[in-house]
Amino acid sequence: MSLDPAAALELGTVRVVGTGLLGASVGLGLSASGARVLLADVSPTALALARDVGAGVPDPGTEPVDLVVVAAPPDVTAAVVADELKAHPDAVVTDVASVKAGVLAALTASGADLRAYVGSHPMAGRERSGAVAARGDLFLGRPWVLSPAPGGDAAAMAVVRRLALALGAVPLAMPASEHDEAVALVSHLPQVAASLVAARLRHAPDAAVALAGQGLRDVTRIAASDPALWAQILAANAGPVTAVLEQVRDDLDRVLAALRAIAAETPDADAVGARGDVAHAIADGNLGRERIPGKHGGVPARYAVVTVVIPDEPGALGTVFADIAAAGTNVEELALEHAPGRAVGLLEVSVLPAAREHLEAALTASGWHVVA
Amino acid sequence: MSLDPAAALELGTVRVVGTGLLGASVGLGLSASGARVLLADVSPTALALARDVGAGVPDPGTEPVDLVVVAAPPDVTAAVVADELKAHPDAVVTDVASVKAGVLAALTASGADLRAYVGSHPMAGRERSGAVAARGDLFLGRPWVLSPAPGGDAAAMAVVRRLALALGAVPLAMPASEHDEAVALVSHLPQVAASLVAARLRHAPDAAVALAGQGLRDVTRIAASDPALWAQILAANAGPVTAVLEQVRDDLDRVLAALRAIAAETPDADAVGARGDVAHAIADGNLGRERIPGKHGGVPARYAVVTVVIPDEPGALGTVFADIAAAGTNVEELALEHAPGRAVGLLEVSVLPAAREHLEAALTASGWHVVA
Repeated sequence: MSLDPAAALELGTVRVVGTGLLGASVGLGLSASGARVLLADVSPTALALARDVGAGVPDPGTEPVDLVVVAAPPDVTAAVVADELKAHPDAVVTDVASVKAGVLAALTASGADLRAYVGSHPMAGRERSGAVAARGDLFLGRPWVLSPAPGGDAAAMAVVRRLALALGAVPLAMPASEHDEAVALVSHLPQVAASLVAARLRHAPDAAVALAGQGLRDVTRIAASDPALWAQILAANAGPVTAVLEQVRDDLDRVLAALRAIAAETPDADAVGARGDVAHAIADGNLGRERIPGKHGGVPARYAVVTVVIPDEPGALGTVFADIAAAGTNVEELALEHAPGRAVGLLEVSVLPAAREHLEAALTASGWHVVA
Repeated sequence: MSLDPAAALELGTVRVVGTGLLGASVGLGLSASGARVLLADVSPTALALARDVGAGVPDPGTEPVDLVVVAAPPDVTAAVVADELKAHPDAVVTDVASVKAGVLAALTASGADLRAYVGSHPMAGRERSGAVAARGDLFLGRPWVLSPAPGGDAAAMAVVRRLALALGAVPLAMPASEHDEAVALVSHLPQVAASLVAARLRHAPDAAVALAGQGLRDVTRIAASDPALWAQILAANAGPVTAVLEQVRDDLDRVLAALRAIAAETPDADAVGARGDVAHAIADGNLGRERIPGKHGGVPARYAVVTVVIPDEPGALGTVFADIAAAGTNVEELALEHAPGRAVGLLEVSVLPAAREHLEAALTASGWHVVA
C-alpha cells in the first residue's frame, strides 16, 4: 500500500484537466514520484492553488502529452474528454467521474474516436473539497474501477491501470453499465437508506433519541453526507438507483403487510405466516451481509468480540492495545462505544474465535474490566 | 460505571423468574454484590445451570421476597407477572421484556392489582443466549427504561430504579407506549433498514460487492442479527413499527418519484424540482443524524478525523495509541477500515478539531503514515 514511483515515471507526461480534490490529488501523487504533471483548469485561481500545493505546473500547451486525466465536474466531463481526445490524438484519455454510463453514452453520441479513451472511477473522497484538501495518498488501497469503451485499445487500458497502480490504488476492470449498477447497490442505496432512517429522527422526542445505541449510530453514520453532492451523484445514476430502490420498496411492502396483519390479530384471527415473512426478511439480510468481502478481500470470517471498559483519559487506549499486543493477539476489527451519561467507553475488539478466551484472560490479568 | 453493592443490598431478597441470559445476568450481578438471589425457572436444567454459574440459589419457596424480576419469554411475561403479584403481595414486581405496552395491556385486562408493578427494559443483550452466556456486568452503562403502570406506587418505582443502579445501568423513566414508539424508531427501524439493504446483496455479482466500502459495512452491520429473535421482537411491537415504516415508505416513494423523473429527462423536458427533492431527502437525514446524542449523552461534537496506515501485525495498534497518548490527544471515536487486497488497515481516529493538526504532526514525526 504505497505509491509506485516506477509506474508513475512510465506514464510519461500527464496532463490533469480540472484541479479540484481528485485532480490535484492525482497531480500530487504523481509529482511526488517525480512524474511530469501539467495542470489545466478553467479557473486561474484554482489552477494557481493546485500549483502551490505541489500538484504540478500549469500546462504551457507546448509539450507532447502521454496521458490526460479529466477531473472536471460530472456534467461537463464528456465534453471535456471529447475535446482532449481531439487535442491530443497520441495520448490516452481517462476521466474520474463517479458514474460511467452517462459519460460513455454522451461520448459515443458525439462521434468521438474512443479507441484511446478509458473511463475510470477511483473510489476515494474526503469530507473536504478543492485542491487545498488534496493528498497524494488519497487513493492508497482504494478500488479504482476501469471501464474501457467498447472497441477501446488494450494499450490504453494498460496505461490507465498503471495510473491506478502508480497512485497505490487497486485497479478493477468493469463495463460502464456494470459499474453504475454496482455503485447503485453498494454505495447509493446505503446512502439513501441511511438518510431515510436518520430523517425519521428529526422530530423524535429527546427521550427516544436518548435510547440510541450503536446499531442506530452505525446505520446512520453516512446520513451526515453533503446533500448537494449526493443529489448530483444520485441524479447522474438515476436509472440504476431507481431499479434497486424499487426492489427495496417491494421488500419493505412485504414486511409492512406482515406487521399490519400481526398488529390486527385477535385471539380468533391469527396472522398465519406473517411472523415467517418477517423472519424471512431478516434472514435474507443475513445472506446479503455475508456477501460483503471480509478483511483484505478474503472470505468473511466470524470474529469473536471482546469488550473492555476504557476510562475516558489519554493513554488508556494505548495501554490496552499494548496489552492486547503483549497477549500476541491480532485485532481484526474494533469499535469504541460510549455509555450514556458515563465518562467511560466500551472498546469492542474483534479477534479470531480461537483467540478470545486467551485474550479475555490476559486482559483481566492486566487489570482491565472485560465485559459481556 | 460499576456495580453498586450498597444499592444491591438495599434491595433485600430478590426472586428472579426465568434464568436465561437476562435473568441469570441480573442474578449474577446482584449475587456478586452480596445480595440474596432466589432463582426460579420452569426448566430444572436451566435452573441448575443458573445456580452453577453463580446467579443465585433455587427458590425454596419459604422466604419472604422484596423484589421479583420476571425474565420469562415475552409471550408469557404478562401471565407470570400476574402470578407473581398474587403470590408475593408485599413485593415489588418488574419484568424485562423488550416491548412494554402489550405486557401492560394484558396485565390491565387480567384485572391484576398493578400498584406494585413497574415494567422495565434493560437495553442490553449479547449474540449468545442462556445462563451460560450470562455476565454480572451485562447492564453496565446501558440505558434501563422504567415504565410504571398508571397509578403505580412511587415506592415501587424507587425499588426498580435501585435495581438498575445496583447493576450499573442508567435508569430512564418512560411510559410504556412512549417506550415502544422510541424503540420502534431507534432500534427496530434501523434493523429493518439494515436487513433490507443487505438483502439486495444476495444475488449481486462478486465484482459489485468487491466495491463495498465502509459506508455499506456500517449500514449493514446489524443485518447479521438472529432472524427468529427479531421476528419475535418486531411482531411484539408491530403497531409502532408499522407506523414508522409507513413514514419511511412514503419518504422512499418521494425519492423514487424524483429519480424516475430525472431518469426520464430529455433535452426538452427537464425534471423541474426533482434534484431539489433528492437533496431535501439527504438534508433531512443530516438533521436527523444531528439529533443522536454525542459522547456521554452530551451535545454532538463535530470531530476531526485523522487517518493512519496500520500494518496488519500484533503491536501496531498498541504503538500507535501509545503515540497518540504521548501527543496528549484524547480519542473521541475510532474505526478500523481494511483496504481491499492489501495487508494493511486504515485507522480512523476522531479527535477534537483543535487537536487535529498537532496529532497529525506528532504521528508523522513518530514515523506513521498519516493519510487524507
